[in-house]
Amino acid sequence: MPSAFLKHPFMNQSALAACDEDAMVHAMLAFELALAEVQEASGAVPEGTSQQMRAQLENASFNIVEMAEGIASGGNVAIPFVKQGRAFLAKDLKRYWHQGATSQDVVDSALMLLLKPRLAALDRLLLRCRAAAINLMNTHNHTPMVGRTLMQQALPITFGVKVSHWAVGLEQARRRLGDIELPVQFGGAVGVHSGWDALGLEWMDALAEKLSLAAPVLPWHTDRYPIHALGTALDAVAGAAEKLALDISLLTQTEVGEVAEPSAPGMGESSSMPHKRNPVRSALIRGAARQVHGHTCVLLNAAAQPLERGLGEWHAEWAPLTESALLVEGALEQVAVLLEGLEVNPGNMRRNLAATGGGIMAEPVARLLTPALGADHAKTVSAAAAETSRRESRDYADVLMDLLAEHPETNGIIDNESLCKACDPALYLGSSVAQVKRAKKWLDCK
Amino acid sequence: MPSAFLKHPFMNQSALAACDEDAMVHAMLAFELALAEVQEASGAVPEGTSQQMRAQLENASFNIVEMAEGIASGGNVAIPFVKQGRAFLAKDLKRYWHQGATSQDVVDSALMLLLKPRLAALDRLLLRCRAAAINLMNTHNHTPMVGRTLMQQALPITFGVKVSHWAVGLEQARRRLGDIELPVQFGGAVGVHSGWDALGLEWMDALAEKLSLAAPVLPWHTDRYPIHALGTALDAVAGAAEKLALDISLLTQTEVGEVAEPSAPGMGESSSMPHKRNPVRSALIRGAARQVHGHTCVLLNAAAQPLERGLGEWHAEWAPLTESALLVEGALEQVAVLLEGLEVNPGNMRRNLAATGGGIMAEPVARLLTPALGADHAKTVSAAAAETSRRESRDYADVLMDLLAEHPETNGIIDNESLCKACDPALYLGSSVAQVKRAKKWLDCK
Amino acid sequence: MPSAFLKHPFMNQSALAACDEDAMVHAMLAFELALAEVQEASGAVPEGTSQQMRAQLENASFNIVEMAEGIASGGNVAIPFVKQGRAFLAKDLKRYWHQGATSQDVVDSALMLLLKPRLAALDRLLLRCRAAAINLMNTHNHTPMVGRTLMQQALPITFGVKVSHWAVGLEQARRRLGDIELPVQFGGAVGVHSGWDALGLEWMDALAEKLSLAAPVLPWHTDRYPIHALGTALDAVAGAAEKLALDISLLTQTEVGEVAEPSAPGMGESSSMPHKRNPVRSALIRGAARQVHGHTCVLLNAAAQPLERGLGEWHAEWAPLTESALLVEGALEQVAVLLEGLEVNPGNMRRNLAATGGGIMAEPVARLLTPALGADHAKTVSAAAAETSRRESRDYADVLMDLLAEHPETNGIIDNESLCKACDPALYLGSSVAQVKRAKKWLDCK
Amino acid sequence: MPSAFLKHPFMNQSALAACDEDAMVHAMLAFELALAEVQEASGAVPEGTSQQMRAQLENASFNIVEMAEGIASGGNVAIPFVKQGRAFLAKDLKRYWHQGATSQDVVDSALMLLLKPRLAALDRLLLRCRAAAINLMNTHNHTPMVGRTLMQQALPITFGVKVSHWAVGLEQARRRLGDIELPVQFGGAVGVHSGWDALGLEWMDALAEKLSLAAPVLPWHTDRYPIHALGTALDAVAGAAEKLALDISLLTQTEVGEVAEPSAPGMGESSSMPHKRNPVRSALIRGAARQVHGHTCVLLNAAAQPLERGLGEWHAEWAPLTESALLVEGALEQVAVLLEGLEVNPGNMRRNLAATGGGIMAEPVARLLTPALGADHAKTVSAAAAETSRRESRDYADVLMDLLAEHPETNGIIDNESLCKACDPALYLGSSVAQVKRAKKWLDCK
Repeated sequence: MPSAFLKHPFMNQSALAACDEDAMVHAMLAFELALAEVQEASGAVPEGTSQQMRAQLENASFNIVEMAEGIASGGNVAIPFVKQGRAFLAKDLKRYWHQGATSQDVVDSALMLLLKPRLAALDRLLLRCRAAAINLMNTHNHTPMVGRTLMQQALPITFGVKVSHWAVGLEQARRRLGDIELPVQFGGAVGVHSGWDALGLEWMDALAEKLSLAAPVLPWHTDRYPIHALGTALDAVAGAAEKLALDISLLTQTEVGEVAEPSAPGMGESSSMPHKRNPVRSALIRGAARQVHGHTCVLLNAAAQPLERGLGEWHAEWAPLTESALLVEGALEQVAVLLEGLEVNPGNMRRNLAATGGGIMAEPVARLLTPALGADHAKTVSAAAAETSRRESRDYADVLMDLLAEHPETNGIIDNESLCKACDPALYLGSSVAQVKRAKKWLDCK
Repeated sequence: MPSAFLKHPFMNQSALAACDEDAMVHAMLAFELALAEVQEASGAVPEGTSQQMRAQLENASFNIVEMAEGIASGGNVAIPFVKQGRAFLAKDLKRYWHQGATSQDVVDSALMLLLKPRLAALDRLLLRCRAAAINLMNTHNHTPMVGRTLMQQALPITFGVKVSHWAVGLEQARRRLGDIELPVQFGGAVGVHSGWDALGLEWMDALAEKLSLAAPVLPWHTDRYPIHALGTALDAVAGAAEKLALDISLLTQTEVGEVAEPSAPGMGESSSMPHKRNPVRSALIRGAARQVHGHTCVLLNAAAQPLERGLGEWHAEWAPLTESALLVEGALEQVAVLLEGLEVNPGNMRRNLAATGGGIMAEPVARLLTPALGADHAKTVSAAAAETSRRESRDYADVLMDLLAEHPETNGIIDNESLCKACDPALYLGSSVAQVKRAKKWLDCK
Repeated sequence: MPSAFLKHPFMNQSALAACDEDAMVHAMLAFELALAEVQEASGAVPEGTSQQMRAQLENASFNIVEMAEGIASGGNVAIPFVKQGRAFLAKDLKRYWHQGATSQDVVDSALMLLLKPRLAALDRLLLRCRAAAINLMNTHNHTPMVGRTLMQQALPITFGVKVSHWAVGLEQARRRLGDIELPVQFGGAVGVHSGWDALGLEWMDALAEKLSLAAPVLPWHTDRYPIHALGTALDAVAGAAEKLALDISLLTQTEVGEVAEPSAPGMGESSSMPHKRNPVRSALIRGAARQVHGHTCVLLNAAAQPLERGLGEWHAEWAPLTESALLVEGALEQVAVLLEGLEVNPGNMRRNLAATGGGIMAEPVARLLTPALGADHAKTVSAAAAETSRRESRDYADVLMDLLAEHPETNGIIDNESLCKACDPALYLGSSVAQVKRAKKWLDCK
Repeated sequence: MPSAFLKHPFMNQSALAACDEDAMVHAMLAFELALAEVQEASGAVPEGTSQQMRAQLENASFNIVEMAEGIASGGNVAIPFVKQGRAFLAKDLKRYWHQGATSQDVVDSALMLLLKPRLAALDRLLLRCRAAAINLMNTHNHTPMVGRTLMQQALPITFGVKVSHWAVGLEQARRRLGDIELPVQFGGAVGVHSGWDALGLEWMDALAEKLSLAAPVLPWHTDRYPIHALGTALDAVAGAAEKLALDISLLTQTEVGEVAEPSAPGMGESSSMPHKRNPVRSALIRGAARQVHGHTCVLLNAAAQPLERGLGEWHAEWAPLTESALLVEGALEQVAVLLEGLEVNPGNMRRNLAATGGGIMAEPVARLLTPALGADHAKTVSAAAAETSRRESRDYADVLMDLLAEHPETNGIIDNESLCKACDPALYLGSSVAQVKRAKKWLDCK
């Protein structure tokens, strides 16, 4: 499949490289050498064995192509890898190679080793996004814009509070991801360390420590909770990024124009239309997130695996899990660039606030009128004025004053000044500033 | 849709009732009354208002049918509910009703209120499952059975250790679910407490306390992290239950017969075959889990919601989220019954251990032979013996002894006694007992 | 679960009623009585049997509650239904009841019988949508509006051609759905008509004819192709409806305002904001479609069922399949109302065409300039003019003329008239009209 | 991502190569050159242009790496491809390059061109599977085995009829796939052939013919029905393959042993257990199918695309669609090998038929006893005998005769010979043979 064209746009290239075949071999080797060390420390392997193994294998040229071919017959990459590794070893070392381990121990642990730096990269990106978001929150703490529900103009908010909602969304997902444990896998053929009795669990714990992975309660060959937890945590990050990209997509619409993706040479150009600047970063984020949801769906449906080893369920996890991590990383890089360089247009925000002739202020006006007119009637009057104002392109406050002149019961209760105030979006921002403050406190706390 | 036939078998009937229309109305009312109390406490509503509201509404007869019809025009149930509620109130109270709130505040909070006792029920069920699993682990701590990978016989384990894997799987999911927060929703029309400024956040916190829900950082109208976290946590429970049901389905197969679902009058009977006892509980668990995965998939794809209110994305959450909780509860009830009453047949486990003529012991035998024959040759010999043993239905140890007679290099190194021991599954259980012990310690700790 | 609140807004109430428990009992009974008739016709049952059965059962009061409870122990509704049915029959008829059939025969066939009128209803709705769409295509065959790619203004189209794309989308899905076969299920306990030999297939064919269902090649207890075909065809309709709802959601945005959902009393009102008119129908369509995708996902993952009967996979199909049909029907009713009553605002379309100062015409202008300036330079000039025009709010043609004055190479080649023409959106509608014509021809042909 | 390890085992390597970056460039070039030819034929381009373009581009060295990088800024591969192509062309040709086309025209059409030979390959594989299946059906038309429902032994079937169900499943999916149209994409910037009026549709039709793709009714930039139809048809094939792999997985279980995957050197070996032969092909099929379902889920959720071009939805299709095709091809190659070389063990099938002491024959026995004892009593007796037979390991017929001796009402009605016959599985195969015959007729007909 033309990965370079169909997948790579969504992924960071150096992250991809850090998960390539060589990296996988390296990770599998790290597992096997750590295992030998652990076994040597517990006396199950002659002294010096692990050192010799390392010497003989660390620079060995594993044959990637052959290994890839071997998967089709063995069903997973550990089988040909273990074979090649054994072939490189001196005769007396061969028997200590892969001792007590099974293919799934190697593959699961290697995948965790590959993913560990990816999760660290995600954390770094999310912190970068957080910092950029806080900057935007500060800058636009008092920038009014219209809030929209069901994509209709509703009532004023600030751009700062909108960003704080994005930031809280991303940070919640960051904390969840930060709590995810990447456990080592070590259980042997059927998950009970056959032939090694209680030593097996000791080795498992020691391996975890040596490889800087988490020690699971028990081997997890068919208890795929760690994969489910990781996959869904990645999906949560994807969702938070997707939300932000959706908002930006909507706010960059030509008719709305409240924000624009940061410009860069060649970025967002069209192959046929010179005037266009496409929100390409948002498109890539949204495209990536949708693929992550599909991958996660595979993981959910593969959580139940039969008896002591999956029959296809396990195999189905490899690509979706790895790609999810890479897609999320790619998406977050776009999010970081967006948050750091977003072009915000307060002028257009003001323009749009005025688009309904002030009609979006019908609710505060209704509240103002309620004591005099009762809730239902107040709503009717404020809505009628909004309709008139929109249709006749007249100022909302003016229309209202005319209308209220017909309502003597409002005299003395509602003066023009409070009416004008009720019609001013910039005076009706609710808890926007307080929310930004609260969000910043929470974002900083961890 | 014929719910009673298509859905109810998967769900607990009293749980269903606790989420019915009346319960929803009750939850929405609880939200609105708590809001009035909170506002009264902060002086935004005249003293006595909330008490009068409660008096006028607590026994009011809301019209469910009319309310259901109102959803289609307003788009959610809060709109007709608020209307009906207001109509019940005395004139001077009407203006304080639903003050500062928006539909989504009511619906989201009410759903959280409905789900709270469901999560508590799930926790109770999971604790019941845990206790039953620990019983099985104790009883079968030394019951040998064959471990199977890719559904092929591999090496011996104990039934106790298998149960401990189930138990750890379920308990991990329980702890994740236990960490889930059900936040109150309160943000007003566009999520910034329009018209109430910083008071809004105070009310939000006070509402959370009064309703025994969590206080979110910010309103979460379009930050659906709480839904994602809850939905995927429910899915994790479903997956752990499904794993157990898959194992039981496989172990109850006629040819395997190692366990049987607890018998009960009429349970598992066939409409045409009198001799059959179908693993109906496993089927219902597996059927429920698959539906939960589909629901979760909807939630993943609806995580990104536009601007200040979803346009269909939010609406798409209601049924999948609620049904997921109910399906998981139904599934766990089956799991509890299974774990409490599972018929375990150690005799059949022993019979199956012997099915390959002892051939499953080829690995320990290979390990025994390795020092004398080298790893590769040892594997070949042990495998050849397994093949012969299976084909000729002869005892594996006997075949091996004959075969080794041709290998003088094993003389003196391998005596018949250690060969026989290497062929005895009950002596080759690895860390099974140690794992059960470790699992019990971990299960008890929280 | 509070279906009336969480599900019913998305569904047609009379369709729901046509799929309720009574309807399901009626369908199961229809299957059993047809079976008796078919068997009587082939001599396997004494003459008059089927008539007597019908007489004794047609008005029998099946106990729905008891039946629902029976599912939990038997695993499907056919088991308690068959028991109740047998109990109603005279002693000598009992043995001919459900003869040769298995639970899955009854349930699968009954579901097909329930779905048949639903598919007919979908076809009627889709034809209604088609007619309404053709009306809109005719009315707006020459109404220019801006086309938008990546949600950015691009180049002009007509509203007629947009509707024709919706119409083709819906009609393609209608034709696919129309080709779906709803097969009878009849295979007996293990799908081979045990005990009845070749008679079984004859009965299967005769049953299909009697029940006006399709005759499958073979019984399909675990060949779920028919379910996959039906489920994905329903999903295709959902997708076509969702596309239209997405477009309408975008076009009804306050700042865009090119169309509006048909107004109706109470429709789309907000619980807090009197001025708003929410696109509730679009929200319900989009909410329904998302749920359909989740259901379809369950069906895809349940397509592979073990051996001669599913163990949970089959059970998982019932609700998703039935609900998908009902959700699609509910969505199409909204689509029909939208297409029939859509408020189209050509004035706003014109306003939006002018929003970029004519900048959307940069492409035709570039084409006009290419012979004189070369493709790259022509693009640069037209883009620069677009930028200036937008920034300075000047007419695009004017800016261009000024700019071209600096390019003597365009003299004589490009006159002002052709420049003005190239800047007029209403003269740059491409194949819009031709597409409408072609679409109408294709829509009419079947 | 380590594709060679995580993905390639599931895919055919030469098919992968046929979809690589070079192939994609080739396909995009084919589209552009065909477009020039079509335009030349209609006079929109000077005579000889297309020939010169071909000469200048056919052997041009497109820079894949640069092109891949260009995607990230433009959002799709067509943008850098068109740039590179234009740069290769002589100055006077540049303006005719990509004339009237948009990126999505190029990418969608190129993907269809890449997929066309893949669909042909799938058809060939499915025909190969069909032939192999028919062979198995012929060979095992009279091989009795036990049918299993809910994975419990139920009643006898033949292996031939089981294979015929697989074959019908695969063939249904083949016919659906065969009906799928791969349409050319050509609509220009906003799908209405801006600037070319009615010529656009003519070119679209001519392009389709020249490229041997289907001519769509209208351009389908945001009418993704063709993708939905293709994706779900591929998923149907995956499901049919998965069903067969699930059955084989179950039938190869050590305790069942009725079939075995064809043996091949190194195939299915374990890294730790010499005696095992893992059903690796089934695992790979099942692993592939699960990934296809996830990909399809992405396509379902991306069917609704906004206005005239997707904003991430389109981008999300590329990899899932292409990979689905490759995963299905890889899976079918395994299916073909399985069907052609499946090791069938009729001896074990007979052994398993006897495993319940004949208890699976309880249903025919109940039918035999019904005239004498009544349906309910007959069921009770036959079930009791089955239970006794299983518990005491006695012959079912013997137990029955003893039991019936206590029922004088059966004297004269039921003789021992008919009792023995009713207990003989090989005489109770129902329509198995008739079904095979019917299936073969249907399979052959197209």
